[in-house]
Formats: sequence, C-alpha cells, structure tokens
Amino acid sequence: MQLTHFTDLGIRVLMYLTHSRPEPIKISEIVEQFQVPRNHLIKVVNKLAKLEWVLTTRGRNGGLQLAIAPTSLTLGTIIRQLEGCSQLIDCEKAKCKLSVGCQVKSFLDNGLKAFYEEMNRYTLADTVKGQTGNNIIKMHMSYA
Amino acid sequence: MQLTHFTDLGIRVLMYLTHSRPEPIKISEIVEQFQVPRNHLIKVVNKLAKLEWVLTTRGRNGGLQLAIAPTSLTLGTIIRQLEGCSQLIDCEKAKCKLSVGCQVKSFLDNGLKAFYEEMNRYTLADTVKGQTGNNIIKMHMSYA
Repeated sequence: MQLTHFTDLGIRVLMYLTHSRPEPIKISEIVEQFQVPRNHLIKVVNKLAKLEWVLTTRGRNGGLQLAIAPTSLTLGTIIRQLEGCSQLIDCEKAKCKLSVGCQVKSFLDNGLKAFYEEMNRYTLADTVKGQTGNNIIKMHMSYA
Repeated sequence: MQLTHFTDLGIRVLMYLTHSRPEPIKISEIVEQFQVPRNHLIKVVNKLAKLEWVLTTRGRNGGLQLAIAPTSLTLGTIIRQLEGCSQLIDCEKAKCKLSVGCQVKSFLDNGLKAFYEEMNRYTLADTVKGQTGNNIIKMHMSYA
C-alpha cells in the first residue's frame, strides 16, 4: 500500500513551488531537482493546473507558480485528487466470488476515511514548515 | 494507493478458510475458485503458514486449514503483516531533495496509524459475517 509515483511527485512539486521565488519556476528546474522524466512531470503539472492549484505561463519568462494559498490546501485533498482511485481493492477486476455479503470493502472504506480525516489536519504549508531557510532555499538560490 | 495483490489474495484465502469444511482445503480448489496463478497462491499460503495463521498438511487428504480463531485475528494485523512495506512513500528510493525538514512522511505515518486503528476494530470473523449460508457455503458444497 503506497501512494502512486504520480501523487508522490505531485506533492513534491507543490512543496517546491510553496518555497519558490516570486517569478515562475521552469519545468527544467524541477526535472533537474527531482531527477524525474520530463514527460512524467508534465502529466503531473497538467493535473495540478487542471485542479487550479498551479498556474502555468508560457514564454521566455514563463513557468509554474502556486495558484492557491498553501494554508488553504490540505494534504488529504491533495492525495485524494491525485490518487484517482478511491478504493484500496478492486473487487470487480478480480471478479471475486466472495463479493456477495463480503464486509472487507466497507471496512477498508472506513479505514480510508480515517486516513483522510487525519490527512486533512495538515495543509500544504505545514508540509514545508521544517524547511524554511534551509535546503529548499539553497536549491532555489542556485537557480536565481 | 491500493493494497498489493498479495495482501488482497491473502485476505481472500483467510476468508475462504474461515468458512471451510472441517477437512483440509486443497490448493487446487482455491486456484479454481479465485482463478489465480498457482505459484502466486503458494507464495501467499507460505506466508500465511509462516505467520501460523494457516496449517498446511501434505498427502492425499492434505490441504489448508485455519490455524487460528477468526475472532482473534484483526484485519489491521492481517494487512500490516501481508503488506510488508509499512510506508506510503519511499523517500530514499527517489533520493528526494526535500527530505531535510520535510513533514510529509510523519504526516503520512499518522494517517497510516489512523487507518490501522480503524482496521483493528474488525476481525477475520467480521469480514464474512454477511456470508453465512450463502455463496461461500454453496462454493464449498460443489467440492464436497
């Protein structure tokens, strides 16, 4: 049970932008910082833009900027939106013969609800609280 | 974020055995019921035997039997043991540059704790409560 790479990268992009310089951040900077395939990053950025959490601008001075206050976006909302699948097991895919009367799915749904309730206690701003003035700032300085 | 196929099948094997006839259940019966590769099932069964939740006996009348009372095994314990990995993200694998001071991992750990607390409210016996006298019994009858 792990978050998808898509969600993982989405969270990191949002964290990076939370600590970014005022000007837009280039895709190439994030590719280099996180050592991820550009195509994979672009898919993630497109999703973040569609959710209106990230603003993308084109041109020589274009790039990515956070479009939302980091204090207003919870980690629960981020994970729920980026994960896509909202179920821990796919009873249909396996055509499970135990499905009639099976309680597992509803128990897992309750577990997931408890997980998201906990995740909604934290905002994007909280995730980078320990990073003020340290490595992210240094990373950005090297691109300034 | 989904349970692994390994965990998914492990839960189903335990549920099947919870409703089984008194005599040992053949591996071939479970392969046919769940339409899973025999090798995959054997790996799962070996793990369940190692955990001392399932008793395996060899020979013509051999097979699988539950070795533990279904009321004494929680769904949380089952999932935690079968999942293997206890973290929702692997910060080391990606060599994440945000790791210093990053709060995400500890927030996710708290979320996972909330998930398992909820899962520990349910036992293996609870998972099949809706199934007494219905499809599982019918499945077994076809093999009696």
